[in-house]
Amino acid sequence: MAEERVVYVGNKPVMNYVLAVLTQFNEGASEVVIKARGKAISRAVDVAEIVRNRFMPNVDVKDIKIDTEELVSEGRSVNVSTIEIVLVKKE
Amino acid sequence: MAEERVVYVGNKPVMNYVLAVLTQFNEGASEVVIKARGKAISRAVDVAEIVRNRFMPNVDVKDIKIDTEELVSEGRSVNVSTIEIVLVKKE
Repeated sequence: MAEERVVYVGNKPVMNYVLAVLTQFNEGASEVVIKARGKAISRAVDVAEIVRNRFMPNVDVKDIKIDTEELVSEGRSVNVSTIEIVLVKKE
Repeated sequence: MAEERVVYVGNKPVMNYVLAVLTQFNEGASEVVIKARGKAISRAVDVAEIVRNRFMPNVDVKDIKIDTEELVSEGRSVNVSTIEIVLVKKE
């Protein structure tokens, strides 16, 4: 099952998301996409860096994309930045 | 003077950095690199997105890199994530 899996990063402690990424790779994913928006973007970068540097040196950053999402909150629209970090396991 | 300029994003309001990037492009830079670390990473992404979407539709994200820096603080070393977003002006 070499499909792509997604881990959404929010406001929990960073190691929760690191563990989620490691679990995906250990279950056979060849790529894991880390997604976050707003203030959680910094934490998403931390997750990618900790996975690569501390746990899986055979994982590389394949691609990073940033974008803007329009959220509607109480009738007003607010723009929120998003990030997608694609991690790939080297064979 | 089509050289590369750098804007370091910190804790000031996001529009300060947007203005800094716009100024660099208006002074003739062909590329502007937005750099940040730690919690300012989210703001750096906001800066890139606001420049592109609201002020300069002819500017593209050319490359995004993430990395880790080791800071020594009171004798202890702390790892901090960093981001570099390269914006380029299309001709």
